[in-house]
Amino acid sequence: MSKPVCVIVGVGSGNGAAFSRKFAAKGYRVAMLARNIDYLKELEAEITDTQAYQYDVTEIDKAAEVFNRIESEMGMISVLVYNAGAGAFANIDDTTVESFQRAWEVNARGLLVVAKQVIPQMRKLEGGNIVIIGATASIKGGANFVPFASAKAAQRSLAQSMARYLDPEKIHVSYIIVDGVIDLERTRKAMPDKPDEYFISSDDLAESVFFLTQQPSSAWTFELDLRPFGEKW
Amino acid sequence: MSKPVCVIVGVGSGNGAAFSRKFAAKGYRVAMLARNIDYLKELEAEITDTQAYQYDVTEIDKAAEVFNRIESEMGMISVLVYNAGAGAFANIDDTTVESFQRAWEVNARGLLVVAKQVIPQMRKLEGGNIVIIGATASIKGGANFVPFASAKAAQRSLAQSMARYLDPEKIHVSYIIVDGVIDLERTRKAMPDKPDEYFISSDDLAESVFFLTQQPSSAWTFELDLRPFGEKW
Amino acid sequence: MSKPVCVIVGVGSGNGAAFSRKFAAKGYRVAMLARNIDYLKELEAEITDTQAYQYDVTEIDKAAEVFNRIESEMGMISVLVYNAGAGAFANIDDTTVESFQRAWEVNARGLLVVAKQVIPQMRKLEGGNIVIIGATASIKGGANFVPFASAKAAQRSLAQSMARYLDPEKIHVSYIIVDGVIDLERTRKAMPDKPDEYFISSDDLAESVFFLTQQPSSAWTFELDLRPFGEKW
Amino acid sequence: MSKPVCVIVGVGSGNGAAFSRKFAAKGYRVAMLARNIDYLKELEAEITDTQAYQYDVTEIDKAAEVFNRIESEMGMISVLVYNAGAGAFANIDDTTVESFQRAWEVNARGLLVVAKQVIPQMRKLEGGNIVIIGATASIKGGANFVPFASAKAAQRSLAQSMARYLDPEKIHVSYIIVDGVIDLERTRKAMPDKPDEYFISSDDLAESVFFLTQQPSSAWTFELDLRPFGEKW
Repeated sequence: MSKPVCVIVGVGSGNGAAFSRKFAAKGYRVAMLARNIDYLKELEAEITDTQAYQYDVTEIDKAAEVFNRIESEMGMISVLVYNAGAGAFANIDDTTVESFQRAWEVNARGLLVVAKQVIPQMRKLEGGNIVIIGATASIKGGANFVPFASAKAAQRSLAQSMARYLDPEKIHVSYIIVDGVIDLERTRKAMPDKPDEYFISSDDLAESVFFLTQQPSSAWTFELDLRPFGEKW
Repeated sequence: MSKPVCVIVGVGSGNGAAFSRKFAAKGYRVAMLARNIDYLKELEAEITDTQAYQYDVTEIDKAAEVFNRIESEMGMISVLVYNAGAGAFANIDDTTVESFQRAWEVNARGLLVVAKQVIPQMRKLEGGNIVIIGATASIKGGANFVPFASAKAAQRSLAQSMARYLDPEKIHVSYIIVDGVIDLERTRKAMPDKPDEYFISSDDLAESVFFLTQQPSSAWTFELDLRPFGEKW
Repeated sequence: MSKPVCVIVGVGSGNGAAFSRKFAAKGYRVAMLARNIDYLKELEAEITDTQAYQYDVTEIDKAAEVFNRIESEMGMISVLVYNAGAGAFANIDDTTVESFQRAWEVNARGLLVVAKQVIPQMRKLEGGNIVIIGATASIKGGANFVPFASAKAAQRSLAQSMARYLDPEKIHVSYIIVDGVIDLERTRKAMPDKPDEYFISSDDLAESVFFLTQQPSSAWTFELDLRPFGEKW
Repeated sequence: MSKPVCVIVGVGSGNGAAFSRKFAAKGYRVAMLARNIDYLKELEAEITDTQAYQYDVTEIDKAAEVFNRIESEMGMISVLVYNAGAGAFANIDDTTVESFQRAWEVNARGLLVVAKQVIPQMRKLEGGNIVIIGATASIKGGANFVPFASAKAAQRSLAQSMARYLDPEKIHVSYIIVDGVIDLERTRKAMPDKPDEYFISSDDLAESVFFLTQQPSSAWTFELDLRPFGEKW
C-alpha cells in the first residue's frame, strides 16, 4: 500500500527491464515507460508491482498527462531512473541535422521535461532520487560519435546543474558513465566474436543504480563510471 | 586579390568586432555574420576588407545560400570563427523548454550547420582553421546555468569530435574556454562596481584566437582557457 | 576460519575505525594499520575479528615485514583500503620542501609500496579489491593546498595506472573523491559553527567503500565522488 | 643592456635548445640550465645572449647558489620555462620505489624548488611568466606509465596551485600538455618507421611557449594541449 514509487524512463529488454526487476524486488512499485507498449505489457505481466505506460520522450506535450496518470494511479514518485539514450554514431560528414537534433531531444531535452514533472512530487515527499544513465561519450567527443556524444554531453551538464541545485533539497541526482557495451541480443549479434566478459550485464549495472538511491545523505555520489573488468580505457 | 578569407559568425560590438579588426589587420578579408545587419554595415564601413552578411544561426535553411554568396563574392573560406553564443542563465525551475532549446540551437546546432558549409571549402584549399568561442560553462554545469551550460557542453563535444576527425585533413579545430566576463557596454552597466581588470578585453581575446590559426601543424592546440589575471577559479 | 582478510591502512578514530567496523560486520577479518598502536589496540579490543599492526607508511623498509606478518597470522589479503592521507594545506610561499615531500610520501609513495605488497597475494587468490580514499584536491590544485593537492594528484594517477593494469586480472582498483570534511572530534572543534549536516559521517563513507568491493565484475567503478547533500561544489 | 632575462631549466638538444633560440631571437638574455654542462657550453657558443649553468634539479641544496649567480650575472628573472621532465615508463610490477621517487623529484619537487627561487625576483619586477612543459600523462595514468604519469600529475597540480596564487600578482603561470613525441635523434632512432609528421618539432612547440609569455593580462591561459595534426587522441 505505501510502497515507494520508482519510474523508469526508457524500458527495453536490457537496462530498463533489469532496473524494473531490481526496484520491484527491493520493495518499490515501478512505473515503466517506453514507446513500445507491447513489450512493456509483457514485462508488466511478468514482474509483480510494475505498471506499463506508453511514452515517447520526444513528445514533450504529453509528459504532463502521463506523469499525472502515474501520480493518480500509483502515487507520488520518489525515484526516477532516466535510461532513454538513443543516438546515432557518425562523423560530421555523415551527421544530419535531424539525427543531431533527435539525439539531443531524447537524451537532454527529454530529461529536462521529465525532471520538471517529477521534481514537484519529490519536493512534496521531502526527498527523492534521480539517476541518469549516461555514457563515456558524455565526456569524450569521439570522431565518429557526433550526435550521440554531443547529446550525452548536454545531458551530463544538465544532470550536474540539477545535482547542484536539488541535492540541498534532499533530491539526490546522480550520473552513471557507462563505459562499455550492454549485453543485449542486438549487441551480441553485432559483435558475435566478443567473449561474454566483453559485455556489461544489465543486472550488474542495476546493482549500482540501486545503490546510488540508497546512499546515506552525508555521502552522496554525483558521478561514477562502470565498465567490465577487462575493458581497456 | 588572393587574400585568405575569414568568416566570423556572431558579430556584435565585442568579440566579433575585435576579431574582424584583428583578422583584417593581419591580411584577411573578413565576412562578418550576424542577425543585426545595421550594425554590421557600420563595421563594414569602418574596417577595410570586411563584408557584412545578415544571418541568424537558428535559421538553418538559409545557411547554404549565405555561404554560397560568401564563396562567390569573397572566395573560399580558410578560417571560421564561431562566436554565436547566447543562452539563458537559469536553474531547472526557471528553465523553459523553449530557452533550453534555443540555447542549444544557437551554440550547438548552429555550429554543426555552419561547419558543414565551410568544411568542403577548406578541403578544396587543403587546410583551414575553425575556432569556437566556448565558455567555462561547457565543462561545469552550474546550478543556475541550465540552458547555457548544457548548450555549451554540447558545443564543446561537437568541437572535439570535429577536431579528432578534421585535424588529420589539416583543418585545425580549436575551442576556447572563456572564463570571465567580456568587457562590453552591457556588462559594464550590469556590474558597475567591478574594476577594469575584472573584464576580458575582446582585443586581448582576439590575440589568442588569431594565434590558434597560426600554429605550425606539428604542435596544434585543441583547447585553451582564457581569464583575467585576477580571476578566481 | 576461511573468512576473507581486509587490510585498512591508516586507521584513526574516523574513517579507519568505521571501515574496520564495517568490514568486520560483513564477515571479514580486518588487519588495522597505523602509526599509533595504542589506539589500534583499543579498537582491536572493541571490534571482533580485527587485529592491530603498527606501521608508518613512510617507513618503506618495514613494509615487507608487516605484510608478511599479516599473511602468516591472518592469511592472504583480498581487500586493501588505503586511507593514509595526511598533508599540509599551504600556498607556495608557505610550503616547505619537507612538507611537500612528506605529503607525497604518505599519499603516493606509501600506496605504491603497500600495493606492491598485496598484489601478489591477490593474484594467488585470483582476485581482490583495492580502494583508495582520495579527495577533491586530487583533481583541483587550490591556491592554498600545495602539498596535499599535489600528493593527492600523484596518488590518483597511480590508482588509475593500477586500475588499468590490474582490473583485467580481477583485482578491482577504485578511487574515492571525498569532497567535504569528515566528522571528527578534531574537525568539529576547528569548525564549531558548522551544523551536523556539514560533515561527512565516516560510517556513511564506509557504505560506499564496502559497496565498491562488492560490485559484480561486468560493472566495476574506478572513481566516484562523495559529499554531503548540502555541500556546494 | 636592459634585456629581460629568461631561464630555461632542463636544456637538451630538443625543447631546451629550441626555447633558448626562440627567446634569444625575441630579445631576451637566456640562462640555460642542465646537468650536462658540456652541451650547454656548445649552445652558449652558438646562440648569442645565452649563458650556461650546470644544475641538476634533484640537487635541491644547490638551487639558491645557482639562482643567485644568475641574478648577479644576468639580472632578475622575468621568465622561467621548466622543461625538466624525465621519468620511467613502467607498470606497477616493474616500477621501483627509486624510479617512482626520482620521476617525482625531477618533475614536481624540482619545480617547487626552482619556482621558490624565481618568484621573489618576479615580485620585484612586478610581474613574470612561468611556463611548465607537461604531458598528457599528467591527466591520464596509463597502465605502463606509473612513475612518469604520477610525477606529471603532481607537477600539474602544483602548477595549478601556483597559477591560482600567483596570477593575481601578475605572475602568469601556465602548463602545456604535450601530447606526442618530440622530434629528437633519440626518438627517431627508437621509432624509425614513423613519418616526419608523427613528431612534434621543438621549434613549433617553442612558438606556443613564447606566445604564452606574451598574452595580454586580461586574457591569460593556464593550460593548453599541443599535438601533431595527425595524432590520434
